[in-house]
Amino acid sequence: MRALVEAARRKESALVVGLDPIPSRLPRGLRELPEARASLAFCRDILEAVESYAAAIKLQAAYFERLGPVGMEVYAKLIEDASALGMPAIADVKRGDIGPVAAAYAEAHLAVYGATCATVNPYMGADAVVPFLEVTRRLNRGGGAFVLVATSNPSAGALQETTEPPLFEVASKLVAELGREAGSYPDAGAVVGATRPETGRRVRELLPDALFLVPGYGAQGGGVGAVRPLLDAGGSGVLVNSSRGVLYAHEGSSLDYRDAAREAASQARDDLRSAGVSM
Amino acid sequence: MRALVEAARRKESALVVGLDPIPSRLPRGLRELPEARASLAFCRDILEAVESYAAAIKLQAAYFERLGPVGMEVYAKLIEDASALGMPAIADVKRGDIGPVAAAYAEAHLAVYGATCATVNPYMGADAVVPFLEVTRRLNRGGGAFVLVATSNPSAGALQETTEPPLFEVASKLVAELGREAGSYPDAGAVVGATRPETGRRVRELLPDALFLVPGYGAQGGGVGAVRPLLDAGGSGVLVNSSRGVLYAHEGSSLDYRDAAREAASQARDDLRSAGVSM
Repeated sequence: MRALVEAARRKESALVVGLDPIPSRLPRGLRELPEARASLAFCRDILEAVESYAAAIKLQAAYFERLGPVGMEVYAKLIEDASALGMPAIADVKRGDIGPVAAAYAEAHLAVYGATCATVNPYMGADAVVPFLEVTRRLNRGGGAFVLVATSNPSAGALQETTEPPLFEVASKLVAELGREAGSYPDAGAVVGATRPETGRRVRELLPDALFLVPGYGAQGGGVGAVRPLLDAGGSGVLVNSSRGVLYAHEGSSLDYRDAAREAASQARDDLRSAGVSM
Repeated sequence: MRALVEAARRKESALVVGLDPIPSRLPRGLRELPEARASLAFCRDILEAVESYAAAIKLQAAYFERLGPVGMEVYAKLIEDASALGMPAIADVKRGDIGPVAAAYAEAHLAVYGATCATVNPYMGADAVVPFLEVTRRLNRGGGAFVLVATSNPSAGALQETTEPPLFEVASKLVAELGREAGSYPDAGAVVGATRPETGRRVRELLPDALFLVPGYGAQGGGVGAVRPLLDAGGSGVLVNSSRGVLYAHEGSSLDYRDAAREAASQARDDLRSAGVSM
């Protein structure tokens, strides 16, 4: 996770901006282009607009996959562009398969497409996570894997919190077992939503040293207060993602989409700073 | 699941052949081609070789994703070829994300790439599964979603079987709740490995009417006997996948890879038939 942490410290920002290019929500002028070109142009503009405020970007693979093979070319170009701007890319792929299949996914997103980190789904156990860590260690670019532990969506609790012990605790222990120290944080991190503070607090107890990727900030309803239970003992250890709150800040605003995104990213970074969320 | 069931009845075969094109294991002559071309040529030959014996094919998305955008073109072509041969395609993508993101994945694999069914990871709950069912219902091509319930890999138990109630039971209940009758089977099916018979028996109790996609047959160690606990009351309700046991049957054999695959598929179909596994 070294690359993420260095970028966050350099920019004094715990903000990650998520690229979720939803065709129907692109600015009017871009909507007339073919979808893949429109997504590329839009995301490139967003990258430049938020570059000073965001430690890293997160690409939501589904929106590129939905455009067919040409969408994956856009995905590749954006990871390259982000890297040229000094922003590590998190491939939000949530892949969850095993052994050689998981290794193929890890190769795809970390080596072929060149993202620094990826998100991983632990339903299939350690077999699903280890190959991502192995590829990360081999590439040695300061990356890592964020394992889904406690997600921020409404139906997450039905699977993650109804058993004894709750599934999010089992997944937390898996992350603790598999991660290896690599700089300030182990290379296995956790995805922990900002929507259920009690759950978040418990995950932090189980993973006192891990880096958390926190979705559910902004558009999904979790504010800065919701991030606080996730902080480590030093007031750090979280990277907070905002996707639609930044990308679509132009909706209902008189600002150009670039300016609206810049302002939203700057505001989110400042809010996190004032709340004492640092790296 | 109607399209799968019809194909299985027409061919009197419960066999699904999985396409896992692993570059280092391709036949010698093909290994000299660029990887994407080699994978396409190999998988096309396999499709033709197994067509009479397999009800459907299953594409392991990771192996195509690993080849970059051109790999997704190969993936698209193979789904098209399979469809031209009358074989429904199962996109083994194990995607697990929520709401609009899950909808984008479902659109990608079922509409853009044109697979009939997809595999889905339930870690994030109903939010991850419902969009796949919605796209399936809208397309109305007799497809469905196979939800990971009890997988066949060694570390699966660590998450799926250690809680109370075990996670595979929670996931089974989710499948039962979300599926809607569509012909002989509900459109939500389950992935249930052939490696842990007690678990399989319990999943069948919880899902007496569902269609199971069964990995772990052949190369992964589960034989015909291991499939028996998964059958429904009528001795049906399973589609059994064999990937490497068919694809790489030429290894250590004097047969051409096409002949070796044909023979392995024919043998697997016959073994399933003799064990009374029908559709």
